[in-house]
Amino acid sequence: LQTRVGKRTAAAAFRIAVQLVDEDVIDMDEALLRVTGAQLAQLMFPQFDKDGGERQLIATGMAASPGAAVGKAAFDSATAVEWAARGESVILVRRETNPDDLSGMIAAAGVLTSRGGKTSHAAVVARGMGRTCVVGVEALRVDLKQREIRTPDGAHVGEGELLSIDGSTGEVFAGAVPVTASAVVAALLESSSDDDDADGAGDGDGESHAEGEHGELIEAVQRLMRHSDSVARMHVRANADTPEDAERARAFGAQGIGLCRTEHMFLGARRKIVERVILARSDEQRESALQELLPLQRHDFLGIFEAMDGLPVVVRLLDPPLHEFLPDLTELSVKVAVADALGKPDEEGEALLQEVQRHNEQNPMLGMRGVRLGLTVPGLFQLQVRAIAEAAAQLKKRGLDPRPEIMVPLVGDVKEFAIIKEQSLATLADVVAEGGSDLHFPIGTMIELPRAAMTAGAIAGEAEFFSFGTNDMTQTTWGFSRDDVEAAFFPHYIDAGIFAVSPFETLDVAGVGRIVAVAAWEGKEARGDLVVGVCGEHGGDPASIHFFESIQLDYVSCSPFRVPVARLEAGRARLEAI
Amino acid sequence: LQTRVGKRTAAAAFRIAVQLVDEDVIDMDEALLRVTGAQLAQLMFPQFDKDGGERQLIATGMAASPGAAVGKAAFDSATAVEWAARGESVILVRRETNPDDLSGMIAAAGVLTSRGGKTSHAAVVARGMGRTCVVGVEALRVDLKQREIRTPDGAHVGEGELLSIDGSTGEVFAGAVPVTASAVVAALLESSSDDDDADGAGDGDGESHAEGEHGELIEAVQRLMRHSDSVARMHVRANADTPEDAERARAFGAQGIGLCRTEHMFLGARRKIVERVILARSDEQRESALQELLPLQRHDFLGIFEAMDGLPVVVRLLDPPLHEFLPDLTELSVKVAVADALGKPDEEGEALLQEVQRHNEQNPMLGMRGVRLGLTVPGLFQLQVRAIAEAAAQLKKRGLDPRPEIMVPLVGDVKEFAIIKEQSLATLADVVAEGGSDLHFPIGTMIELPRAAMTAGAIAGEAEFFSFGTNDMTQTTWGFSRDDVEAAFFPHYIDAGIFAVSPFETLDVAGVGRIVAVAAWEGKEARGDLVVGVCGEHGGDPASIHFFESIQLDYVSCSPFRVPVARLEAGRARLEAI
Repeated sequence: LQTRVGKRTAAAAFRIAVQLVDEDVIDMDEALLRVTGAQLAQLMFPQFDKDGGERQLIATGMAASPGAAVGKAAFDSATAVEWAARGESVILVRRETNPDDLSGMIAAAGVLTSRGGKTSHAAVVARGMGRTCVVGVEALRVDLKQREIRTPDGAHVGEGELLSIDGSTGEVFAGAVPVTASAVVAALLESSSDDDDADGAGDGDGESHAEGEHGELIEAVQRLMRHSDSVARMHVRANADTPEDAERARAFGAQGIGLCRTEHMFLGARRKIVERVILARSDEQRESALQELLPLQRHDFLGIFEAMDGLPVVVRLLDPPLHEFLPDLTELSVKVAVADALGKPDEEGEALLQEVQRHNEQNPMLGMRGVRLGLTVPGLFQLQVRAIAEAAAQLKKRGLDPRPEIMVPLVGDVKEFAIIKEQSLATLADVVAEGGSDLHFPIGTMIELPRAAMTAGAIAGEAEFFSFGTNDMTQTTWGFSRDDVEAAFFPHYIDAGIFAVSPFETLDVAGVGRIVAVAAWEGKEARGDLVVGVCGEHGGDPASIHFFESIQLDYVSCSPFRVPVARLEAGRARLEAI
Repeated sequence: LQTRVGKRTAAAAFRIAVQLVDEDVIDMDEALLRVTGAQLAQLMFPQFDKDGGERQLIATGMAASPGAAVGKAAFDSATAVEWAARGESVILVRRETNPDDLSGMIAAAGVLTSRGGKTSHAAVVARGMGRTCVVGVEALRVDLKQREIRTPDGAHVGEGELLSIDGSTGEVFAGAVPVTASAVVAALLESSSDDDDADGAGDGDGESHAEGEHGELIEAVQRLMRHSDSVARMHVRANADTPEDAERARAFGAQGIGLCRTEHMFLGARRKIVERVILARSDEQRESALQELLPLQRHDFLGIFEAMDGLPVVVRLLDPPLHEFLPDLTELSVKVAVADALGKPDEEGEALLQEVQRHNEQNPMLGMRGVRLGLTVPGLFQLQVRAIAEAAAQLKKRGLDPRPEIMVPLVGDVKEFAIIKEQSLATLADVVAEGGSDLHFPIGTMIELPRAAMTAGAIAGEAEFFSFGTNDMTQTTWGFSRDDVEAAFFPHYIDAGIFAVSPFETLDVAGVGRIVAVAAWEGKEARGDLVVGVCGEHGGDPASIHFFESIQLDYVSCSPFRVPVARLEAGRARLEAI
């Protein structure tokens, strides 16, 4: 109810703001300041169909993380993981969650608990992951032995039966309630094709032909978005790793890709080739595996550059620890030991285990990853640079305008960056010499370590752009990793008043923000035309966006679905700053 | 060989500097500037007898912690402890060490590992304990099953056979090479008893009666040490966790304990009790286990406070992740799976495994440790505070003057600290009420996270002292963990000119140093009488000591054996600064 109210309030805010403009009571700037990104986000969530017919409301709890989720009830994490693995949508049902439930929460479409409040483990973790979540449904009895939910009036929902939960209202329904996509989302996607002609005057004529209150809302959103775009100083880009995500981001008005991660390009069927790169016993073996990856990587980039034709695409070179591509140490150890105990030694497994042990790290997040990989695994980063360059050359020949930018992750010292930059320029020159067209790509770096921030002036002497990786910067500045702590003790911390909100959700201005501000300032002092953006999750968070405006970043980059929110907040932040 | 020459040069430098003073060519300040801590360190190590006869060099690795050690090869900690307990000298031989090997390292005369670099666990811990250590002897194959070392040319050294290792050259010899103790160490220990009467004039008369070149050297060292103490602004404390180390540190002139770690107090026979604290299913179970630890902890502190009577002892509350006290996940998984495969299910093991899995972390260094433990495990830190308070009260009743200080590790936000401080003050008040004498201990914090440094002003509003944990600060500022990176890529980095020296050995002034300087400055601005020291490994490193003088820290703290070096460099740094 609360969010249905929220949604009504949000819709009203947009409509009324524009009405007041039309009545000459306020101007468009004032109207923009009267709506918020949070309200727009409310309007963008899918919701359960009002006319869904046989909706059977069985209880109402607290709305902990928005969205509308439908799936089979699973009463433990292992079951949720198993069912999700075979493609089923699952609602994880628990009395309350604890760190053991993390894998189940990741696998589930939604999370339902009978206990806990808005700072419970389930609520905090689900919000962090963007999972739909309802908590504290005290009226429901979650019976883990019988594996069923019982309502006060005697209804049952057993394991495997369908449930629908509304994370915006706290409602819990038995069965599958049909979900309606947001009309505002449809309108935002529709209007993006006109974006190039937008004059920013925001008169909105002819933009929507829908009738009544609904039509008014759509028109109000469109006019306010246009106005926001016209006053915003910061650009909004998206984090997207596939052509599909890139297209969606562009449809939502993204002015480029601020972060194209390349790690997923090494997974799936390619994992075996990557294993050969890692386990290579000679330069030749490694080189041959890399050569197999080249056409696959090139293909990856072709699709993304084409989707973003004419707009920048910042490609981050491989970041995660290499052993993420190897089998799990514990699983493999068990497999080998059991085979041995049963008198059927697994020689291949033993050989692989030795390598896995060799590459094992105590703290992978603080180990051999990012630029350190590029500096120690010969040819790896240059495979990626070549794939980028060849894809761009191919598109140019087809008359397109690809604009890749090469981003080096996890730099701590300017010398690390300078070595990779020099190698990359050589690779670009090779591709040009082999008949590619003229290729000039900006080469820049993530700023995600305090060391990089403290020496930003020196790094800007070499790098053409900075992109703040505020997730990693939050991890290193606070000395905690999101995977390990968000579930383990953030709920305690929020209860104790140490955090008001997770620093992975809203940027911690006093700590991380101070470091980011120093680096942005000193980077721009060292290189006047340095482009400085942010590509952490915070790029889509309203409060964080206002901070980034205050320190004059050039753009924020966020997940495609957050792009409209970021566009609205970029304009609002600009108005508040001037 | 290199060090033999070094030693001659070092001795000459000390003798000549003082001769020139006596000839009125230079004054004592100038003389002090003409010798170095590195030279003093050279003079302090025992060395293998030049005329030792049949030395059989079998391999050379990295010189990780200087000295000359001879003993029987032991291939695990338990064996080392057992043999040492019956009075034998032991060399602990491992592929690499981990915290479980601590008791073996303490028991051993020297530590030899086939893997790891200068910042590996073995190297860092051995340097901290002043144990001779050679690491990364890649040519040797350490066979833990056969319990022997094999050399490339087929020689063997079996368990119980004699080994000699030279931690200044990295040389490993089969058999016992005769050792000569350092006369300079003897003289430094001897003179420490006169320290209270030192007038700092440095005339050195009557301090040593040894004759000839040798006597001259001893006298020169003593006069220069006295002069250094008289001009130094920074104090020198020691990192010591046992009464024996504390006594040694004091004998070397330490003016207190800057870091008393408490983690080793939870190992060995107490591990089982700690396991019960972690695995407790109720407050009562946990409380009962903590109560068992109390008298043991109190006893630990009694010995240390007594050894440092009248001098400050900074006790760091428990820092490492709790699961370090639990069995290893992979080992236990293998054990349980093998038992299962053989049809003899290990039910106890299975139950324990579930708990171990629950506490497992992806990145323990970035997980549930330090103050986060104190805030989430009820009673844990307060057990420690009570043990400290009761020990101090007991010593006061005996007319002694214990001066404990309570240090909270891994603070990122002032609120974390404030909660622990409030609880600690309540515990102190309880102990006073129970009949203890008046107890007023300073309560302060490690500054080892960039977040703490960036908010140092706020933290100084609550904390009475800061101690920079520059090891952890280096880890978080650079985003790499000591254990994971040195062997993996530091050699590449040093080759590529990215580092001149490991930032774990000499403080990285541009990055970590900048953060430390900001925090020291803003801390003192917020609280005029804030005591600010450093207790990372860097506290014993000459170049780093000069940096700490330049930013006006109050003291450095280092391993006992480094105290004389730090005293000399503290004086020299002061002279250079003024």
